[in-house]
Order: sequence, then C-alpha cells, then structure tokens
Amino acid sequence: MYDIIIIGAGPGGYVMAERAGHRGKKVLLIEKEHLGGVCLNWGCIPTKTLLNSAKHYVHAKEAPEFGVTTGEVKFDLSKAMAWKTEVIETLRAGIGFMMKKNKVTVVNGEAKFLGPHKVKVGDEVYEGTDVVIATGSSPFVPPIPGAKQPHVMTSTEILSIDKMPETLTVIGGGVIGIEFASFFSSLGVKVDVIEMLDEIIPFMDRAQAKEFRRALKGKVEFNLGCKVTAIDGHTVKYTTKTGEEKSIQADVVLMSVGRVPNLGNMGFEEAGLDFDRRGIKVDEQQRTNLPNVYAIGDVTGLSQLAHSATRMGEVALNTICGQRDRFRMNAIPWAVYSMPEVAGCGFTEEQAQAAGHKVKTASLPLTMSGRFLAENGKRGPGSVKVIKDADTDVLLGVHMVGAGVSEMIYGAAVMIESELRVKDIREIVFPHPTVGEVIRDTMFQL
Amino acid sequence: MYDIIIIGAGPGGYVMAERAGHRGKKVLLIEKEHLGGVCLNWGCIPTKTLLNSAKHYVHAKEAPEFGVTTGEVKFDLSKAMAWKTEVIETLRAGIGFMMKKNKVTVVNGEAKFLGPHKVKVGDEVYEGTDVVIATGSSPFVPPIPGAKQPHVMTSTEILSIDKMPETLTVIGGGVIGIEFASFFSSLGVKVDVIEMLDEIIPFMDRAQAKEFRRALKGKVEFNLGCKVTAIDGHTVKYTTKTGEEKSIQADVVLMSVGRVPNLGNMGFEEAGLDFDRRGIKVDEQQRTNLPNVYAIGDVTGLSQLAHSATRMGEVALNTICGQRDRFRMNAIPWAVYSMPEVAGCGFTEEQAQAAGHKVKTASLPLTMSGRFLAENGKRGPGSVKVIKDADTDVLLGVHMVGAGVSEMIYGAAVMIESELRVKDIREIVFPHPTVGEVIRDTMFQL
Repeated sequence: MYDIIIIGAGPGGYVMAERAGHRGKKVLLIEKEHLGGVCLNWGCIPTKTLLNSAKHYVHAKEAPEFGVTTGEVKFDLSKAMAWKTEVIETLRAGIGFMMKKNKVTVVNGEAKFLGPHKVKVGDEVYEGTDVVIATGSSPFVPPIPGAKQPHVMTSTEILSIDKMPETLTVIGGGVIGIEFASFFSSLGVKVDVIEMLDEIIPFMDRAQAKEFRRALKGKVEFNLGCKVTAIDGHTVKYTTKTGEEKSIQADVVLMSVGRVPNLGNMGFEEAGLDFDRRGIKVDEQQRTNLPNVYAIGDVTGLSQLAHSATRMGEVALNTICGQRDRFRMNAIPWAVYSMPEVAGCGFTEEQAQAAGHKVKTASLPLTMSGRFLAENGKRGPGSVKVIKDADTDVLLGVHMVGAGVSEMIYGAAVMIESELRVKDIREIVFPHPTVGEVIRDTMFQL
Repeated sequence: MYDIIIIGAGPGGYVMAERAGHRGKKVLLIEKEHLGGVCLNWGCIPTKTLLNSAKHYVHAKEAPEFGVTTGEVKFDLSKAMAWKTEVIETLRAGIGFMMKKNKVTVVNGEAKFLGPHKVKVGDEVYEGTDVVIATGSSPFVPPIPGAKQPHVMTSTEILSIDKMPETLTVIGGGVIGIEFASFFSSLGVKVDVIEMLDEIIPFMDRAQAKEFRRALKGKVEFNLGCKVTAIDGHTVKYTTKTGEEKSIQADVVLMSVGRVPNLGNMGFEEAGLDFDRRGIKVDEQQRTNLPNVYAIGDVTGLSQLAHSATRMGEVALNTICGQRDRFRMNAIPWAVYSMPEVAGCGFTEEQAQAAGHKVKTASLPLTMSGRFLAENGKRGPGSVKVIKDADTDVLLGVHMVGAGVSEMIYGAAVMIESELRVKDIREIVFPHPTVGEVIRDTMFQL
C-alpha cells in the first residue's frame, strides 16, 4: 500500500515523486520508458543541447568581430549527438539517484488504471491512497497523404538523425518547429516553414512575433497562412492563403503541428474518468472527477510546458497534504531557445485587451543595454515589451526577444505573480551592466 | 536659471539628467571628460566588452566538446580593443542623443561648486534650484615604493594596454582585480593575485567565495593574507601572513586596492559641505547638509556600484519632485563578470547572522539544471545559496557562482525587495529548462 501512485515519470511525475518522498510520503512511480519523460529524453533537453552546439558554431563564426580568430569552423553532427546522449544519460541517472534518495519506488512498465486506489503493471496490482495521472502527450501526425514516409519525421525521430539534410521543410511554426528551424538553418541547411496561421508562435505578442520572424528571416523561409495538402515523395505540396497550389522540395520533413494527450489503452474510460480528446478534466487543485485521482501536465490539456507540469504536481501534492494551493495560469513564463531566443510571461497586449484591461504598453530595444551591445554587436535583434493595467498600474506582461532572454524571464514571473505595480518595480535595483536592465528601463516609459 | 544642475555624467548623473528632463525639468549636466563617466569609459563597459572577447576565445576552445571544430583559436588584442572602443563610442553617442531628446544642456568642463544654487565652469557661473554632486571616484594608489612606474597600472591604464604581458601580478582581490585576473589568465597570461585579506571579494558569502576562488585556481595563483611592501622594477615584494618575505616577477602590475571619492579642488570645503575622506554625508533621500544640495553615487561612499548611483539619482529626483522615496541598501544586486561569473543580492549568511536573524540556508549545485549541464559540461562550477529568516520565512539573500548568473540575479532583487516568503516563492513558476530554476529548487531545501 502506497500513499501516492504516480503514472508517468516526466517533469510532472518525477518532481512530484521527489517532493512527496521528501515530505515522507510512500511513493510509487510508474514509467513505461525512461525516467524524465519526453522533456528529458525527446524534448526540452536534447533540443537545448543541440541548440547549444549550434550556438557554439555560430559564436565561433562570429568571433572575429570580437577579436578572436579561428581556422575553419565545422559542425560535427555525430559528436553533437554524442554529447546530447551523454547529457540525457547523466540527467536520467540523476533522477534515478533523487528517487532513491527520497525513497521513491520506481516500476518500469505500462500502467493500467483500475480506478481510484488501484493501478496494474504487468500482472502486479498496486494500491495507493491517491493516484496521479501524468502520462504526458505525443506528437500529433495529421492525416496528410504521404505523412508516413521515413523522411517525414516528428520531433522524436529528427532528434536522432545521423546525416545533415540539405533541405528541411518544417510543417508547423510553433515552438518545436521554430527551434528546429533555427537549429538547422544556423548550420547552413535550407529551411522552409509552412504555417497555417498568419503568424508563427501563436501565443506570442503580435508585435514581438513579427520582430522575431524578421530576425529569423534570411535564414528561414516562411510560408504563412498555408496549408499542406500532401507529401509526394520529397515534394511537399501546399495551398497558399489565396488558394494557389505550390510545392517545396525537402530532404527531410518535420511534422510539428501539435501534441495530443496520452489517453489511450490505460483504462481511463472503463474507470469512468472524465476526459475528452483535449485532455483529462481537472479543477484548480488538479482533482479529476474520481475521488483521490489527480491529473497533471500535458495530459490535462491545460498547458504543454514542462514547468507547468511540475507546478501542477506540486499543487496536487499540496492538496493531498491538506495545504491550500491552486494552479494559476496568469504568470507562467515560456521561452523558445532559438537564435535569437524569445520569452514571455503574463498577458500579451492582445490578451490584456481581450481580458478587459485598459492597457498601456512600452517597448525598448535591447541595444539600449551596453552589455547587449558589447556581446551581440550592433545588429543583434532584441527588445523588451511590457504591458500594464493603466488604471491600477499593475504589471500584466513582459515579452522579450534576444540572446539570453530565456534566463531573464523568471524575474518577470516573480513580478507578475507578486502583482507588483510599475511604480514599485521602478524602485527595484537591477545590476549594471546587464541586458535585464532594459526590463527596468521600459518601466520608466510606461 | 536651471531646475537642476548635476555635476558629473556617470551612471548617477546622466540617468538622473535623462529622467529629470523626461519629467520636464530644466537640467544642466556638467562633465569634465566623457559622457558616461568611469563606468562607460574606463570601467564596467570596457571590462565587460573585453571579457566578452575572452569568453568567445574560451568558448571557441571548448567548442569541440559540443561537436564544433575550429582549427587554431587566437586572440587578437588590437581587434578586441578596437571593438571595445567602438562599443564605448556607440554608447557615448547614445547618451548624447538621450540628453538632447530630453532637453538636457550638457557643458564640458571642470565644475567649481560655489554653494547652494551656484556652480562655476570656466568663467561661467550657472544657477539652479537644486544642485546634485555626482563626481564619482578614482583608483586609489597606495604609497608603496615603486608604485609609480609605467608598468604599474590602475584599471584605467590597463584597459588601453597594447601588448599582452606574459606575467601579471594583481594587487587586490576585489571585483576589479578578479575581473582582470580572469580576463588575462583565460588568454594564457600567468596571473598572480596578492590580497591582504584571507579571502577574495570581501563582501561575498564565505562559502561561495571559496568555491569561486577554487574555480579560478589552476589558472590564477592566489596569495591571500599577503601585504605588498615594494615594487622593485618588475619584482613585486610582499610579506606573507607568517611574516615570510617573498617576491613575484611580473611584466605588468595591476593596482586594484580600491577607489576613493572625487572630492578635491571643487570648492566643497569652502562651501561648508559635510564630507570626510570616505565621501559626502547624505541622508536616505541623498540630501547633504546644505539646502538643495544632493550627492549621489561613488562620491557618497555608500556603494561603489553603477546601479546604486543610478538609483540614488532617482531617489534624489523623486525627493526634488516631492515624491516619497528612500535609498535602501538591502536588495542591491552585484555581479562579477569573470569566468565563472558570480553574483549576489541581499545578506550573506554571515551578514544575516550579524544582523540578528535566526538563519536557515540551503545550497545546490547548478549541475542540477539540465540546461547548465548541456551548456557548460559536467565540470562547469556553479551553485546557488539561499538564506532566509527561519522565524518569518522571509528570503534574505541569494548568492550564485556560475556562467550567466549576472543576468539571473535581478530576479533575486525583485524577491528580496518585495520581502517574499520562501513559501510564496515556491508557488512561482520558473521556466524549464533554465539555469535559474535551481534558485527555485533551493527554496524546496529550506
């Protein structure tokens, strides 16, 4: 008999297991593949590791501008892949160590949910006071003719590619598509992106999304408002906004049109769990319709971010422990690790208006920062845009484009979550010379 | 007749001038050398620009680990210096532009303070309702025999060096000394640091200072608790803690034992201004003993950080405008831009204890972060240490060692300034995968 049974060892499940163990709970963690889930094994970590290699490549090429000369700069895909594998294996071992340290029992196998308190793995039935479903999501492959060819890949397969393509077509201009577009294009691959909507990264502030797309342009060709109709061998056929039929030749096609929650064949329907194709329904404490059964992470359909999953797990754990908590969506930061990076937290201008706020915004280029200029040269694109409620002076959103912004955005989460007023933020001292200072400078423009 | 006369166009003076102009004040800014002061012309910006070049050199050398080969990597000092000059001139022009945009009158020349409301430059006497003294500081050269040779330099001269030394001895292990030690040692120069105290960077948390010093060791030789007695040609003579007489040969000697406020020959004494050799005395609104006379920045001796000067200028301006404000010292972040970087905000463990807090601390290595591992390899040193008041749960300090931490520490300033409790910080979502997440992780260890 366990206190908590967690199905799925991604960033929702394994962090919850660790924290629950730390608090003295007897925890069973069930994982059918690898500790760390998609995020560690086929998602965030391998993409960031490869992007880091690409950044080293680009930085070495740009080094002469800063007084550093090199011989010919070359990218060795197999070595970059080997480093990626080493990073994954090191972190996976680290999670294993944390599970042991916090006395979490880990079982490898496919879980079958038998209803509250009962989960089966193989022939074994495990019992627990609370059950947490953290089964994640999988890439969605739309029913396009020709989508099932070996050179048509999802993010999972392309992460193990063994030869650089000369041309790549990315179907879907969301976070995953854009990160791969940035990776391959920075290494000299001709990259086309085909996106159904009128702009890339749909949840970005419109003005910043445009700036971001312009920064990628020249390296990546964008085909917005276009719909792929078929993949005929290496020919990707699509229809433009005006109804024109066009096509692109691509050695490799990346299918990155979205992810779907993992709901099948685990007994959810039989047990009477309330879910639809978007995910398992939960309340703000991550409770499902079944008593003592919680769902966290991608499988809820609420947010497909690793750190959202982690936070949902913490909320579920606090709820189980009788501590008041609530999963709030208003201050969840996000980042895209492309070149340049983009990141944001809180409302975009459009969202703030839609929510009924009287909105005031300000924006400054990152070249206002001496450090940004020193490190990125004069042409490095970048900006900060801030959004406040004009009546209350409360900060609603911070959005950034530029090298390194992924590590700065957490501070915006602190400010937004703490409901700080712009007046208060102006009194906070930011270190000089940093890029982050521009966030503060924009507060004086509001 | 001006509303505000500001003496000195460093980060205290020029930012205050800009903000005052933005608020409709008629401002006169007097500068005897260059807009931007020491920070832009002989301090923060040139050192960060050179350190950025050194980082490109080191990253290019380390690139093979990540799958990028480069051939031979060489450092071209003259090109790095040219980039440094270009950055300075670009930023200086930017300040000039901001002064014009905000209708600030800039006068070039040495100011003579004639008392409240009156400042003389050359033959011209300017009158203003309020006068702000922002004259900054200069490197202190101790009266050591042999200190006045051309190869014995302060930070000002070494920033224009035209040939790499083979050996460098740095006298003084504070921020300036350590940044130059890191710069030169990373480019292959044999560097010795001689420091009178028992540890480098005196205001750092002791445990983190030790970790930092260990990270630099191997590249830099440290001689702690040692006192330089003379510089005889290229021989630096010093006495160790145990009284032993020793010496080091050095092509170049950097004298970085501290800075002293610029107080001389500007009429301060004659006008009856209250100051001593540590600086001009001010209250929490930056008021001096003379009516309508304020002092900000290094010349106050309160804090020798550019962003402190900026904040003091804002406090003085708010006070002049009749708005309540107060210069607070408890949440001023700082950073050292060496390899690795270090940064901190708030109390160290030692300071928190001395202030009477019941202290609880936690510390985690940055290799907990998948991103840190991916980008810095397994051997990259780094850690986060957090300090809270055990009774109130309020966060008192955050201290970091590791690549990139200078851009993360502002978030700690937000948390400490907002007096957040650890319990609240745990509910804030940090993006994954970032290095900054480790700050959040340590909150779960408290």
